[in-house]
Amino acid sequence: MQKNIPFKGIIAYPITPFTENETVDIPLFKQLVERLVSSGSHGIAPLGSTGVLPYLSDEEKEAVTVATLQQVAGRVPVLAGVSNLTTERTIYHAKFAEQAGADAVMIIPMSYWKLTDEEIFRHYEAVAGKISIPIMAYNNPATSGVDMSPALLKRLLQIPNVTMIKESTGDVQRMHYLRKELGDEVAFYNGSNPLALAAFAAGATGWCTAAPNLIPELNLDLYQAVAGNNYEAARDIFYRQLRLLQFIVSKGLPRAIKAGLKLKGIDAGYLRSPLQPLTAEETGQLQNILRDCVAETV
Amino acid sequence: MQKNIPFKGIIAYPITPFTENETVDIPLFKQLVERLVSSGSHGIAPLGSTGVLPYLSDEEKEAVTVATLQQVAGRVPVLAGVSNLTTERTIYHAKFAEQAGADAVMIIPMSYWKLTDEEIFRHYEAVAGKISIPIMAYNNPATSGVDMSPALLKRLLQIPNVTMIKESTGDVQRMHYLRKELGDEVAFYNGSNPLALAAFAAGATGWCTAAPNLIPELNLDLYQAVAGNNYEAARDIFYRQLRLLQFIVSKGLPRAIKAGLKLKGIDAGYLRSPLQPLTAEETGQLQNILRDCVAETV
Amino acid sequence: MQKNIPFKGIIAYPITPFTENETVDIPLFKQLVERLVSSGSHGIAPLGSTGVLPYLSDEEKEAVTVATLQQVAGRVPVLAGVSNLTTERTIYHAKFAEQAGADAVMIIPMSYWKLTDEEIFRHYEAVAGKISIPIMAYNNPATSGVDMSPALLKRLLQIPNVTMIKESTGDVQRMHYLRKELGDEVAFYNGSNPLALAAFAAGATGWCTAAPNLIPELNLDLYQAVAGNNYEAARDIFYRQLRLLQFIVSKGLPRAIKAGLKLKGIDAGYLRSPLQPLTAEETGQLQNILRDCVAETV
Amino acid sequence: MQKNIPFKGIIAYPITPFTENETVDIPLFKQLVERLVSSGSHGIAPLGSTGVLPYLSDEEKEAVTVATLQQVAGRVPVLAGVSNLTTERTIYHAKFAEQAGADAVMIIPMSYWKLTDEEIFRHYEAVAGKISIPIMAYNNPATSGVDMSPALLKRLLQIPNVTMIKESTGDVQRMHYLRKELGDEVAFYNGSNPLALAAFAAGATGWCTAAPNLIPELNLDLYQAVAGNNYEAARDIFYRQLRLLQFIVSKGLPRAIKAGLKLKGIDAGYLRSPLQPLTAEETGQLQNILRDCVAETV
Repeated sequence: MQKNIPFKGIIAYPITPFTENETVDIPLFKQLVERLVSSGSHGIAPLGSTGVLPYLSDEEKEAVTVATLQQVAGRVPVLAGVSNLTTERTIYHAKFAEQAGADAVMIIPMSYWKLTDEEIFRHYEAVAGKISIPIMAYNNPATSGVDMSPALLKRLLQIPNVTMIKESTGDVQRMHYLRKELGDEVAFYNGSNPLALAAFAAGATGWCTAAPNLIPELNLDLYQAVAGNNYEAARDIFYRQLRLLQFIVSKGLPRAIKAGLKLKGIDAGYLRSPLQPLTAEETGQLQNILRDCVAETV
Repeated sequence: MQKNIPFKGIIAYPITPFTENETVDIPLFKQLVERLVSSGSHGIAPLGSTGVLPYLSDEEKEAVTVATLQQVAGRVPVLAGVSNLTTERTIYHAKFAEQAGADAVMIIPMSYWKLTDEEIFRHYEAVAGKISIPIMAYNNPATSGVDMSPALLKRLLQIPNVTMIKESTGDVQRMHYLRKELGDEVAFYNGSNPLALAAFAAGATGWCTAAPNLIPELNLDLYQAVAGNNYEAARDIFYRQLRLLQFIVSKGLPRAIKAGLKLKGIDAGYLRSPLQPLTAEETGQLQNILRDCVAETV
Repeated sequence: MQKNIPFKGIIAYPITPFTENETVDIPLFKQLVERLVSSGSHGIAPLGSTGVLPYLSDEEKEAVTVATLQQVAGRVPVLAGVSNLTTERTIYHAKFAEQAGADAVMIIPMSYWKLTDEEIFRHYEAVAGKISIPIMAYNNPATSGVDMSPALLKRLLQIPNVTMIKESTGDVQRMHYLRKELGDEVAFYNGSNPLALAAFAAGATGWCTAAPNLIPELNLDLYQAVAGNNYEAARDIFYRQLRLLQFIVSKGLPRAIKAGLKLKGIDAGYLRSPLQPLTAEETGQLQNILRDCVAETV
Repeated sequence: MQKNIPFKGIIAYPITPFTENETVDIPLFKQLVERLVSSGSHGIAPLGSTGVLPYLSDEEKEAVTVATLQQVAGRVPVLAGVSNLTTERTIYHAKFAEQAGADAVMIIPMSYWKLTDEEIFRHYEAVAGKISIPIMAYNNPATSGVDMSPALLKRLLQIPNVTMIKESTGDVQRMHYLRKELGDEVAFYNGSNPLALAAFAAGATGWCTAAPNLIPELNLDLYQAVAGNNYEAARDIFYRQLRLLQFIVSKGLPRAIKAGLKLKGIDAGYLRSPLQPLTAEETGQLQNILRDCVAETV
């Protein structure tokens, strides 16, 4: 059976910018999406963690999905985040994304109360039954509070339109397990930036990352080197961007990407409270790291 | 300065029951609150983790707060949960709770992106500035995703109406630190059920617990023994209820309390998906544990 | 069946002092043991972690055991540490301790390769079969590298002369489990200094501690308050000594006890490399903590 | 400055076999070493964790070192393990190994009491000052109990004859840090078997492993593919051996290697208590895994 897998390569995550009074700034969001598409990313993923999905109202989420699809306009596939604590709201947003034209939806089993495997399976099954586009199951215990075991991920893949797995535990052994247990045909994606090289070495189909907001050339060059089976080149390119990848993860992607865009002269709006901008000291560190990336690239 | 501390003893957490089609069942909720008041709890805390706060819409939260205050009718103080991912929504619900007549609000720094200490402080400060009733700062990294250090909790207590701390890390050393560093006058509450005895030994002012939905006498007897400086009795009473406390924590409070109420012949409605009822095997375990509690009590 | 349980109350752990060229200083060791006995400790435990057991040669261990028994001369019971990585050496030292006159031996399942439950059980069983005095099974994953589950500890207690358990995970829930599952008659001892109050509240028979080297009155007063069912007094006494207990644990007992003895004007010799003395800054902290303990006691 | 780095590629770790009455079996040990050399390993490392170093007496360690050097007879370089809890014993064995003809020594900062960075640095410095051959600093918190930070490893490399680092935390990010912070010229080795692919991708100079006792061809083929910049081939070869690598790690290398050798018809002697053989069920699993490795290789 041929699985429906619309993504590979570099899947870029835009931030959701806000106006000074903390409402979503849709025109600015479209500009940020355009930068990602025109600089060569292979897919666009709005409403991820980078896009502060859980901090948005239902109406705001819908506006962001629609704006993404309008701006991308079919140039690359769109992966819409539709995760919610309740099954009912997840279904609602998954259906909205499908109707709006998204190529796939990404779902993390958000949890306040730690969910059982059975609850997670039913949650995915309930959503999958209501849409026809494929689902990327996303495992990231650091933000969701629940760690989906390889065995559970294997079970989720039995649901027909759950076709992709995004792994963000930061443990490359998970990817080894997925590839070994689920076979060559499973499409797994890396969501842990500092694992980019190890994940591609392990056979990842793509890299889900906010880094293309700041260093799209380095991200794309890494993928090209990997695709060309040239790991000596891949290793050099990876080490050139590693400090930036570590920094944006350690500081929180929305904060760090916004600060980096501003350093590059690009308006990225405001954050929504309680999230606050990087401190002056942190911004100085980021400036140095960005400068070093460019210097090493030349 | 005399701090405003309206709670001590056993602060009971009601579940939020749902109808079969997963809407909030307010009449049934009022019955469950009445049971807690009439069986002797010293305070009522709606919209906690037990009350599945994060799974409710704004309107549902408001209805639950109003229903609690109507039913309690001043017999014991009410502590309303108003936590939200965004500062704006937290302020909104804190103001609503105050206007509705709550005696205090409980706030956990919910986080999807791990918050910095500065962000958490500003979050509490922003809410505290908009209300006059006291705030209980709630630390529970297992559900909030962020662990407030003793140093941060100490800083939060400098905000005038942050007067109480609820500690749910499950580490009794945290309570030792709070008492040692913050002095005798700090009011700290235990939110980890299996730590009830150790927390009272460490000087906790109260115990925040969902257990009075099932075993109010044992919970109240423990507090009475402690208040009477009779630890040999306290130890016996604690060990009689320990297995139940461990069980309801390990299975998730909403699931376990609902199942326990049903075993006691009390209607507790439905859960909201993705949360599912205990399995038949788990329900059987709970039945045995409840029976043993009663047998040992007699 | 009446179990053979020779210890209760405060079981004191002497350090093993060295001469300047790092050989064991037996005469000085005897003086340090004498201080512990004459200040009122209820038992003496040489060759524990505090006594740097694993850093000593076979001959040195034997000399320390003999010196302890000579100096204590039957005034209080002696618990000799005989742990070793291999079963053969553990049996050797257990037999030696019995022949020398020790009242019991303490055995931690030291492990380089993480031992299976079966290996641990056979290890204890092999040793127990070669001696007639009782064994205290000691669980301390931080130093041994293996965490014995409550289920395994329960199994070990089926060996006739394994009659005591020393718990040093620092998790009071373990003690709750031991008491609840193994019954009132099991003798469990607390080996985590900052848990002293919580452990006694949970029903611990004794406290295994190096603190009597520095503050014997406070340690003994805590036990007396507990034995008299006066927890309000116990709490006050506990909080007076808590900072010292935390300090000696965080800095490593041999280093901290040696530094504290020197501050009290008592010769404690040298450490064996790679262990090094506390820094001047750490020693200053300890001086302040010791002074505060005394001030609060007066 | 050109660092003295005598190892690259596959560095093979022999087990230390025992006779039925648990004495070291030197003639059998020599046969096992011969197998590793003649099947193509690039270096031999006796007295590692696999060789149960900490379970041996001083005399036994010396006999094993001498036997290795006699059997290898200069065909490949020899890396002798000389770790000990005390600095004095570590120096003793390091000098012995040098005099016996070892090419380098491996030292892990064994610790019962968690060592400070200063203590670890002095320990290495003291040993390094007494020998002229290079030292491989070995970081493996799971067995040593202490985790050397990248900053400390960087400091250790300032000691002239500390020229190599073996990283066994199982976290590929540590290797990224070492390469990024310490520069291209640092020689780091992977000691975590399931990380073999990720470590080579990250630039590891060699792989320290017991696996060549069982599957030397697969281990060597992986290195050849990597050295040839052919990562597609490397990935395939890695996945063929992954289950075996995971199995031998999870069961403990001495137990698993001994069982595997026996399954291959090779006498591997006995273990020293408390270590016990794999169970029949575990041996059956290993048989299946070994069979699958061979089948996939063909």
